[in-house]
Amino acid sequence: MKRIGIGIIGIGNIGSRLYKEIISKKKDIGLKTNTNINIVAISAKNIKKKRNFKFKKEIFYKNPLDIIKNSKVNIVVELIGKSDGVSKKIVESALKNKKHVITANKALISKHGDYLSSIAEKNKVNLEFEAAVGGGIPVLRTIKDGLATNKIYKVIGILNGTSNYILTKMQKTKNSFHKVLKDAQELGLAESNPKFDLDGSDVLSKIRILSSLAFNKKISKNKCLKNGIENIELTDIEMAERLDLRIKLLGITEIINNKLFERVHPCLIKKDSYIANIDGVMNAVILEGNPVGESVLQGEGAGPGPTSSALMSDLLSILRGNIKFPFGIPSSKRKKVSFYDKNQNFSSLYLRFEVKDKPGVLSQITKQLAKYKISIERLIQIPDHRKKRASIVIITHKAKELNSDKCLKSFKSNKNVLKNPTIIRLF
Amino acid sequence: MKRIGIGIIGIGNIGSRLYKEIISKKKDIGLKTNTNINIVAISAKNIKKKRNFKFKKEIFYKNPLDIIKNSKVNIVVELIGKSDGVSKKIVESALKNKKHVITANKALISKHGDYLSSIAEKNKVNLEFEAAVGGGIPVLRTIKDGLATNKIYKVIGILNGTSNYILTKMQKTKNSFHKVLKDAQELGLAESNPKFDLDGSDVLSKIRILSSLAFNKKISKNKCLKNGIENIELTDIEMAERLDLRIKLLGITEIINNKLFERVHPCLIKKDSYIANIDGVMNAVILEGNPVGESVLQGEGAGPGPTSSALMSDLLSILRGNIKFPFGIPSSKRKKVSFYDKNQNFSSLYLRFEVKDKPGVLSQITKQLAKYKISIERLIQIPDHRKKRASIVIITHKAKELNSDKCLKSFKSNKNVLKNPTIIRLF
Repeated sequence: MKRIGIGIIGIGNIGSRLYKEIISKKKDIGLKTNTNINIVAISAKNIKKKRNFKFKKEIFYKNPLDIIKNSKVNIVVELIGKSDGVSKKIVESALKNKKHVITANKALISKHGDYLSSIAEKNKVNLEFEAAVGGGIPVLRTIKDGLATNKIYKVIGILNGTSNYILTKMQKTKNSFHKVLKDAQELGLAESNPKFDLDGSDVLSKIRILSSLAFNKKISKNKCLKNGIENIELTDIEMAERLDLRIKLLGITEIINNKLFERVHPCLIKKDSYIANIDGVMNAVILEGNPVGESVLQGEGAGPGPTSSALMSDLLSILRGNIKFPFGIPSSKRKKVSFYDKNQNFSSLYLRFEVKDKPGVLSQITKQLAKYKISIERLIQIPDHRKKRASIVIITHKAKELNSDKCLKSFKSNKNVLKNPTIIRLF
Repeated sequence: MKRIGIGIIGIGNIGSRLYKEIISKKKDIGLKTNTNINIVAISAKNIKKKRNFKFKKEIFYKNPLDIIKNSKVNIVVELIGKSDGVSKKIVESALKNKKHVITANKALISKHGDYLSSIAEKNKVNLEFEAAVGGGIPVLRTIKDGLATNKIYKVIGILNGTSNYILTKMQKTKNSFHKVLKDAQELGLAESNPKFDLDGSDVLSKIRILSSLAFNKKISKNKCLKNGIENIELTDIEMAERLDLRIKLLGITEIINNKLFERVHPCLIKKDSYIANIDGVMNAVILEGNPVGESVLQGEGAGPGPTSSALMSDLLSILRGNIKFPFGIPSSKRKKVSFYDKNQNFSSLYLRFEVKDKPGVLSQITKQLAKYKISIERLIQIPDHRKKRASIVIITHKAKELNSDKCLKSFKSNKNVLKNPTIIRLF
């Protein structure tokens, strides 16, 4: 049995759960991989923080970079997060020191994954990041192994548990966005600063990783179509219900005419479709490929349990032996992508305008839409006489992104339109 | 680049598609695995059968066992089917000759998997069988790799495309079982002899393979609870609709008090649940494990495309290098299972009796049910005055399998009950 030393850097909720998983599954892992694994080093900001497990003080390192220098450490698990700074330094130097790396850091991989994977390949070690996308869903492994050799042309995902929880709760409880967000924070389902979860950034990181794996390309760097759920109000949720639709924050990546189109935005989806019924903190990924057809994976998207399941699968992948290309094929063979011009995309839109309730406002809006060649399929006006304002909801026929973008911006100077219109694309 | 020779035995729909997939993905596979693969041998019953690809006559072998002796063949793909006879001989001798084996043969693996995997391990070659379960869904790989180290305690699946297609079509078209089966046969979605697809045998083979992988046990050999869909009539489908339920053929395996409980039978499931909406030839598998929680995989369950996707993932697994235990852990460490006594299981039942429409029959039935401690939750009587008969549908409270089994058998001697009652368990 080969002795393998593991170092874990970052001992929060996830790190603690992983620590316990490794200890409790040591025998099972030995059986499966013929190795004798031990956690020989850990590092965290505060040694004294109350943790639900005990460890020998000798294995604690104040400076995580000292773990990299420890010759007993064969595998480094990075659980600090953030795309740059110390976590990047840890991963980079671990790989250069010929240590395998496991990370759950989507920000790091989506920004520096190309660079880091080339270092891993050069040093003949593994860089694994299953936990960066889809929580407990082994979607990266499925693309690399289970669906290996399929030509994947589209990936659609619900990839942010916080957003999905908020949208689901708003729909089920009819509480406001802010009330539901506050509850989620109290339950530990949203961070105290949830910006990146809510504005689509987190999903975009994951979509970029998925694209590069699914299409065998370099990670894209372009400005993508990215909207979050911050502007979704209860009115939108209720209007969706009225139209037999549900609102979901989707990440979508696809190849259109050999060009890459990545986007993250809320979508209105038919209520009885599969993806509309992925509720709460669940994540789901739909892969369309040839010859497999449509493949769907669903599971819990976040939290210590699912995340450590993914980290453990990375650990076993390393312990089973052979060195793998982090993105499935050699870095040198992954091509750069050319981008599909998002401005040329057509979507039907749901638009909600908050306006002053006075004559002529509706005509101003419809005139402006007509000017930008956006034709209206359906219009619902909901007056609020007390506040002397109204919500105008418009469903449009398919409109060009370029036009709708310009059109919506044009309302900024219109004093009768009280705030930026809410836009949700129909799926 | 390492040269690897592949031999394919059985060139029907699946074999032909695989042949073309390998040829068209040769370069991609080279990139991913640093190998130069070639199909160096094929064998089929009839060399002259019309096929949609061309091959050099030199690579055709009349006797498939000659392929095993060919030193240029490193990997043998067995696509003949059947649990015994020539397919078993091929797999057995290929492994003994230190050739890797890929097979889609669930009957073979579910019957001889323990024996064959021990031969593979002894000879340090891989035995891969992803295509045996779930078509294009990489469920075996997900259990072995993606969810490695999870403690899985329950697996639920829709695993037979033919049965699921028939049930879905009956529900959507209101056509009879026999009409829908005939259509399915014409469309190539049911075999000319569909017995094993319809009577639950095919699902049971798959469930046995799933059990052994999920729970790290030997493949079970016991008599399982196994019912198929042959007795489902349109009345049942319509009655299900009335009750807001759907009928699905499920395979379920779980560990109850350290004992294995495997079963295959039609289930009545709430119409708006996930599993009730897996329609047509789709397959789905729900895995419940710790720490991952609930994981769902869904995809096309059969046909040349999905099956060759699975076969190709096996091929890549072999080409990537290291030798794996076919069932995830060494054969010697896989324990025998003790069985949960199916007779002790409790289910609510849907029972349909076809009876003579005359006084006293209903009372005979209810009396008999009471005798076996089966209490009735709901009773619906549908008379057919013209034929002087009636259907009596009964939903029971939870009843012990032993009692319901005995009770239903007791009606055999009752001349007023015109045929064996149809039984569907509530999920």
